[in-house]
Amino acid sequence: MEIKIMKNILDRNQDKAREVRELLLSKKVLMVNLISSPGAGKTTLLERTCSRFCDEMKIGVIEGDITTDRDAQRLKKYNIPIVVINTEGGCHLDSHSISKALDSFDLDNVNVLFVENVGNLICPSQFDLGENFKVAMVSTPEGDDKPGKYPMLFREARAVLLNKTDLIPYTNFDLDCFRLDLQHVNARIPLFEISCIKGDGLSEWYNWMGEQIRI
Amino acid sequence: MEIKIMKNILDRNQDKAREVRELLLSKKVLMVNLISSPGAGKTTLLERTCSRFCDEMKIGVIEGDITTDRDAQRLKKYNIPIVVINTEGGCHLDSHSISKALDSFDLDNVNVLFVENVGNLICPSQFDLGENFKVAMVSTPEGDDKPGKYPMLFREARAVLLNKTDLIPYTNFDLDCFRLDLQHVNARIPLFEISCIKGDGLSEWYNWMGEQIRI
Repeated sequence: MEIKIMKNILDRNQDKAREVRELLLSKKVLMVNLISSPGAGKTTLLERTCSRFCDEMKIGVIEGDITTDRDAQRLKKYNIPIVVINTEGGCHLDSHSISKALDSFDLDNVNVLFVENVGNLICPSQFDLGENFKVAMVSTPEGDDKPGKYPMLFREARAVLLNKTDLIPYTNFDLDCFRLDLQHVNARIPLFEISCIKGDGLSEWYNWMGEQIRI
Repeated sequence: MEIKIMKNILDRNQDKAREVRELLLSKKVLMVNLISSPGAGKTTLLERTCSRFCDEMKIGVIEGDITTDRDAQRLKKYNIPIVVINTEGGCHLDSHSISKALDSFDLDNVNVLFVENVGNLICPSQFDLGENFKVAMVSTPEGDDKPGKYPMLFREARAVLLNKTDLIPYTNFDLDCFRLDLQHVNARIPLFEISCIKGDGLSEWYNWMGEQIRI
């Protein structure tokens, strides 16, 4: 019975995601769904990415959070439109809440919309929000075994960001093991090894994001 | 409608959790439900805790994992009974899967049963497994803002473990902020600041666990 219920929920989510996708296509807005565990560095990545791109294009952000607006507060300095979705305990965003949030944007004045999903490596990967693509983020202190243990997201995503590479010398994280583990799950996915705090490796991510925006 | 469905699922889970709790009480088994984000250090904590206690009491472990048995493999060296529950994409354990797993244990020969839940800071906090209590684990690289952002678990748990304190010098983690954030969510909860890798602070955790077992 629970499988049937889950199928209904996912079907209804998919219908609304289709609507969202059509709307964004008609408005020429690229939507990126950013997913990671809690504290992997999603907001710091968005700070860096907004700082890099906000002069040359119009960025918007949807912040998914269980109960606070702390992440949105950190992005206010970029003077961009931000909408907070508080899930009130919900473990992922869905296309219905995204559709509602889009009403608060002037979509004619947005080129790229980043969605920072709720911090969770599992449930968000199952819900299509109408995005152009998902980006998976994982950080080195979480361990080198995450792609194999949480494969759904790494199969679904169009790119993987490995954050906090600056902490590798202080942990038992094995970069070769991680790369191999990821390769087993998704052989051709682009991997960006970065440190959002130090700035390492970000230019490759910016170049790649720039290409996606221009496609 | 989804709220009603969720209520039904939780009600059925609660009924089975009651059965599990009665069974464990009759067998004098203490069950601890360990919850954290992916990669916070649950398995390393269990390695340490098994190593400390396995000579003086009979320990069992239930390993909740989405798809692999990697965590269970790491605990095999302690020669203790271990049952793996693969949730096949499911984001939390429930009391029905625990009840089934208990059939594989000789409960007359178990004093403490640790349940390592699926790596997820959100969903597992909502599902009573029939445990005596939940323990919340969070690691310093996840940031000092986790109790406020993910309050449900920190309200539900009987103790909090802050792991990877050895990484504090290399991150922007503020211990005072974390303590304050936790205090706002759950003022009286015991907090153990530990490094499972280095062994720091573990004796306080062992003492506390020892007390819980003897109560």
